Amino acid sequence: MRAEIIAVGSELLTAERLDTNSLFLTAELNGIGIRVVHKAIVGDAAEEMASSFRHALERADVIVSSGGLGPTDDDRTRTTVAQLLGRKLQLNQGILEKIQARFRRYNRPMPEINTRQAMVPEGAIILPNPRGTAPGLWLESNGRIVVLLPGVPTELRALFECEVKPRLGRIAPSERLFTRELRVTGLPESEVESRVSPVYALYPDVEVTILASPSGIQLHPRLWSKDPVQAERLLDEMTSRMGLPLGEHLVSTRGESMEEIVAGLLTENRATIAVAESCTGGMLAEHLTNLAGSSNYFLGGAVCYSNEMKTTLARVPAQLIDAKGAVSPEVASALAEGIRKEAGATIGIGVTGIAGPGGGTAEKPVGLVYIGIADEHGAHSREYRFSAADRDRNRQMATQAALDLVRRHFLFPPATKVR
Amino acid sequence: MRAEIIAVGSELLTAERLDTNSLFLTAELNGIGIRVVHKAIVGDAAEEMASSFRHALERADVIVSSGGLGPTDDDRTRTTVAQLLGRKLQLNQGILEKIQARFRRYNRPMPEINTRQAMVPEGAIILPNPRGTAPGLWLESNGRIVVLLPGVPTELRALFECEVKPRLGRIAPSERLFTRELRVTGLPESEVESRVSPVYALYPDVEVTILASPSGIQLHPRLWSKDPVQAERLLDEMTSRMGLPLGEHLVSTRGESMEEIVAGLLTENRATIAVAESCTGGMLAEHLTNLAGSSNYFLGGAVCYSNEMKTTLARVPAQLIDAKGAVSPEVASALAEGIRKEAGATIGIGVTGIAGPGGGTAEKPVGLVYIGIADEHGAHSREYRFSAADRDRNRQMATQAALDLVRRHFLFPPATKVR
Repeated sequence: MRAEIIAVGSELLTAERLDTNSLFLTAELNGIGIRVVHKAIVGDAAEEMASSFRHALERADVIVSSGGLGPTDDDRTRTTVAQLLGRKLQLNQGILEKIQARFRRYNRPMPEINTRQAMVPEGAIILPNPRGTAPGLWLESNGRIVVLLPGVPTELRALFECEVKPRLGRIAPSERLFTRELRVTGLPESEVESRVSPVYALYPDVEVTILASPSGIQLHPRLWSKDPVQAERLLDEMTSRMGLPLGEHLVSTRGESMEEIVAGLLTENRATIAVAESCTGGMLAEHLTNLAGSSNYFLGGAVCYSNEMKTTLARVPAQLIDAKGAVSPEVASALAEGIRKEAGATIGIGVTGIAGPGGGTAEKPVGLVYIGIADEHGAHSREYRFSAADRDRNRQMATQAALDLVRRHFLFPPATKVR
Repeated sequence: MRAEIIAVGSELLTAERLDTNSLFLTAELNGIGIRVVHKAIVGDAAEEMASSFRHALERADVIVSSGGLGPTDDDRTRTTVAQLLGRKLQLNQGILEKIQARFRRYNRPMPEINTRQAMVPEGAIILPNPRGTAPGLWLESNGRIVVLLPGVPTELRALFECEVKPRLGRIAPSERLFTRELRVTGLPESEVESRVSPVYALYPDVEVTILASPSGIQLHPRLWSKDPVQAERLLDEMTSRMGLPLGEHLVSTRGESMEEIVAGLLTENRATIAVAESCTGGMLAEHLTNLAGSSNYFLGGAVCYSNEMKTTLARVPAQLIDAKGAVSPEVASALAEGIRKEAGATIGIGVTGIAGPGGGTAEKPVGLVYIGIADEHGAHSREYRFSAADRDRNRQMATQAALDLVRRHFLFPPATKVR
């Protein structure tokens, strides 16, 4: 079965907005065996909207639209689709009463225009909307299914889950989509691709999407299958084959983020952590604390932008900064060691570098970062040279590298470390 | 002139990826007077791609596509469009030589499949790609313009800027899009809308999009006009009318971020800042340091998750925490005062609260946050009750509120403060 998703709304044709409902709808449709083969985005004008629906009716078995079900003049999905399918709009007393009741509950009078939301094309199944005034509508015509949903994400999701999914599930084919998500750190996209692509040929039925983000590279193998057991086994096998050439750069295979992996390792090892960061400006602490329960392992952090703060908050000797410079392997180690002692933590991390765009020199260019790690046995640091021109990317890459240093500390003890 | 944007690539039909090139293309097209009326997203299959291009040719004056110009079997935009327009593909010797030269420059042999990228539909204008191997193509047919661009964002942008924009600019109408971007903080979307919507009726030609994000509410008035002077004047007038009911919640009218506004105020006032944060976990420091040059005003920060760290890094007396609790107005003020002294800064900010999802009580629920601000005259704090269920949103709202407190400190001295 082939689906087309149509997002309705002139604001989705501006330079500021993207249709994100379609990501949710795609995941849901794929999960019940329906492939999305087209997505269309169209404004509020009736003529253009009709054009989009007309073309979708020519080529898709299922059409799911979002938006244009509100009470104002701009909301034309209902009328456009009714006209296109040759159905009359009729006032539905049941819906009207529900809308009136909703307004009464909030002690507000119902504006006359809301009556429009009770207009229903002949033969439509009404999908009650527990979160808003506009119900969804399910229409069938010439073997095509057309589902109209409101554009508000919470309403769309609730309606899809409760009303649309069960109905589609009964008629959808038994084939569905199985996926994995591999996260990789410390390698550029092209290197990841060239390491794993020889595996692709062994699994011709699996499509792999590669996605580069500031937090690393993601690989998404996808397989359509009628046999869940075989599909899962095949993906497990393929995933482990892909993992081999990635080695210790492979962070996770089920989509866990670097923060989740690090949180798990700290918790398993009953370890605590404290950080002292310069160029990342708080981003490392922010990442370490973005999971619930992080107070179990994260004790605190110092954001030491000025040299004085490196000394007062993270105990870095002023003479060391004078002698080696603030951006140096020695200061990275001292930051890690200092904050570890200050906080009484198992692990200390220190980050110092040049995020840019200014502040670089020939000897210490923009993108040069030193990250130190300290434990009860002492401290050491590593040098990184990030090539990004932009400040935010350098900060994000340094943050990921610091988290990765914690991950490697637990997973790959120094003696067996592979570089 | 009406444009349709077609994004080609099966990965854009997955649940993970969105077509973001279209935002850039929309801004550029609008800037030269071309309206985007449809966007389509389609996979690599020739039949489906042909369907998208065929429909676009029926309804748009200009069609801009991205993607599908690579050298592999999946890259079918070139052949599909040539076939649809009834044009033969011909090997272009000039392009082939450029591709070969590019491979030589990187000391790599050119794979045979790259020859495909030198195949050009009859009558196409070749748009040289300075950043990659695939050139863009410009085709004209029955009064329609079809522009094929590669999907890699840097290549697409460079090609559009250098090759497409000047060509379209010569034939585009004199009307173009004029915009403003108002940023609003501290009010929910519905409240912003109800305050400003009475102004809309006075400017029927201006469309306004409202956009809610964790960093606040954005209002985007948009006006198509042939008269730049009049359009700018109209938008200025409308913007200032919209500003009145928003009062001190209005952060900026030209899209400047809260960080930029705060950075400007700190710089103008030759002030420095230091922060001590608990529930925001480094996010406030991260925001204050994400602009280049932030070392001119940001001295440092402490992320004090544990009570001990509040005492050691930010000088909060342990007895105060015992007496009032870590989440209290007194501790917020003490964090602000303590870090200000520790850093020797003009302004100190302290944040303490319950980000959730756990840790809340009936008396101190999830979302309760105290933010303190200190200067040479002393410290005071404010209470916030954020209603978000999710941790990240509470942290983001607290970060925005803290930045807003700095903004208000400079813009609205306490004596004249409107609450």
